[in-house]
Amino acid sequence: MTSPTPRDPDFAAKVAESFAGMAFMAGIGARLVHVAPGTCAVALDFRPDLCQQRGFLHGGVTIALADSASGLAAFSLMPKGASPLTVEIKANLLAPAQGSRFVAEARVLKPGRTLHVVYAEVFAETAAKRVTVATTLGTFMCLENTPDRPAAA
Amino acid sequence: MTSPTPRDPDFAAKVAESFAGMAFMAGIGARLVHVAPGTCAVALDFRPDLCQQRGFLHGGVTIALADSASGLAAFSLMPKGASPLTVEIKANLLAPAQGSRFVAEARVLKPGRTLHVVYAEVFAETAAKRVTVATTLGTFMCLENTPDRPAAA
Amino acid sequence: MTSPTPRDPDFAAKVAESFAGMAFMAGIGARLVHVAPGTCAVALDFRPDLCQQRGFLHGGVTIALADSASGLAAFSLMPKGASPLTVEIKANLLAPAQGSRFVAEARVLKPGRTLHVVYAEVFAETAAKRVTVATTLGTFMCLENTPDRPAAA
Amino acid sequence: MTSPTPRDPDFAAKVAESFAGMAFMAGIGARLVHVAPGTCAVALDFRPDLCQQRGFLHGGVTIALADSASGLAAFSLMPKGASPLTVEIKANLLAPAQGSRFVAEARVLKPGRTLHVVYAEVFAETAAKRVTVATTLGTFMCLENTPDRPAAA
Repeated sequence: MTSPTPRDPDFAAKVAESFAGMAFMAGIGARLVHVAPGTCAVALDFRPDLCQQRGFLHGGVTIALADSASGLAAFSLMPKGASPLTVEIKANLLAPAQGSRFVAEARVLKPGRTLHVVYAEVFAETAAKRVTVATTLGTFMCLENTPDRPAAA
Repeated sequence: MTSPTPRDPDFAAKVAESFAGMAFMAGIGARLVHVAPGTCAVALDFRPDLCQQRGFLHGGVTIALADSASGLAAFSLMPKGASPLTVEIKANLLAPAQGSRFVAEARVLKPGRTLHVVYAEVFAETAAKRVTVATTLGTFMCLENTPDRPAAA
Repeated sequence: MTSPTPRDPDFAAKVAESFAGMAFMAGIGARLVHVAPGTCAVALDFRPDLCQQRGFLHGGVTIALADSASGLAAFSLMPKGASPLTVEIKANLLAPAQGSRFVAEARVLKPGRTLHVVYAEVFAETAAKRVTVATTLGTFMCLENTPDRPAAA
Repeated sequence: MTSPTPRDPDFAAKVAESFAGMAFMAGIGARLVHVAPGTCAVALDFRPDLCQQRGFLHGGVTIALADSASGLAAFSLMPKGASPLTVEIKANLLAPAQGSRFVAEARVLKPGRTLHVVYAEVFAETAAKRVTVATTLGTFMCLENTPDRPAAA
């Protein structure tokens, strides 16, 4: 796959700013670790307070990482002045989310004028190995003339 | 729809205990507000630290509420000694998650020996109205002979 | 749920014409059996040549019925001059599609200017009973200024 | 990705037999064009009677190709005496299904004892190019002790 051409040369800065504005991502300690046109990766260190009842990362957190990475991968291809919106996302959870670090890697499969289709995988890493714990397939809308960050009060 | 018969008479207690064991749900302030055979509801008060970059509830949190309520709705129908596992979940986000309180209501559409299919809706409530912000459709597996809560250390 | 107001008073005629133009639906013997603003139903009699290897209706046919009914339910709410497009659809197959007649019933959950979210169920009917064999949740786009039926050659 | 080891050495023969038993696939003229452990491809020549109202391949047919290829990819990894069942499948339709030939290529992402997660892409081919028209992500169950083909009457 060739890398798509971004319509906004400042795509990296705006993706970083958008991620920085996601209070929920900051609150759980997630970090933006990669941005390129049409791709994005978000990482998270394990924290017991993000788990479900059997001690694995809560599925909702796993999906939140994939959703954030996917939306930002789509955002990287959007024109200036637009903002991304999750239309829908479907996640298959493949293995228990057990590890010291989790990474969601997203890639735009099909950029469009209005809709972007994005595929993402979430990996659980330990010192010894890297296991795919989830795959997602979602649709992200380009909201034109919508500030991605509200004006400061 | 008639209410399905639970295979475990202690379903309400085990669902409450399972929810109490989800550190992530406790951490975001979510509460279990309803349990009946095959249905479950989880509520969450708005908090700015759970938002995305435009100030709405992060989609991952919305989906996490639906996933938790769905898994517990399935769990309510499982036999003693089993534990629920999210196989997959698909969410359509219908409107911005904007409100003072959010409620995820889940209902088992099809209970099975191994797999349960569960439908959920997430509502955003304000003093004036209640808006559906997401619908999800997911598959939950019954892990037999799997303690839902690990033995205390 | 109150019935949504159609933006095109001729919605019933255009839905019927659109269905009539779906060669695949005609080829398998499917019939349009209900149209109202935001809802649509399509029926199919059992035929051995539409089956999979164990003698049940092929899952692809089941999903095709739900997809057609869903797209037309969305179409019923679109303005004149627009045409519906399936963006994505997710199907959970709940039971073997075994019966003498199958009916897909679709209902728009959320109409939008650009996107419609539609829920559908497919039932298998015999003389004695009606069983839900599939549920779907999909997104349908309103293509403005796109003839739903190409001009005759 | 390394190729998974099939649990049934006769996987290729049983996949071919299963496909041959799908009356619907035969009826639309689909052909099994590739089988290996965990992967499968199904091809279809364009036919006007498989189209929707604007003259493209009906989305249900596109999804049926992906569903068949996915189920057979999963089947190739199942033990002798088992049969595959589609639990759920989600399709994103990326471009109009316009071409002289369509190919669905499926690959098992995660084989399991009970459930297999399968990714598929459907391509539309013309003399000049090959376009991805759909991607699907689905779950397929291994029905143990279930003949994939019913005994002849």
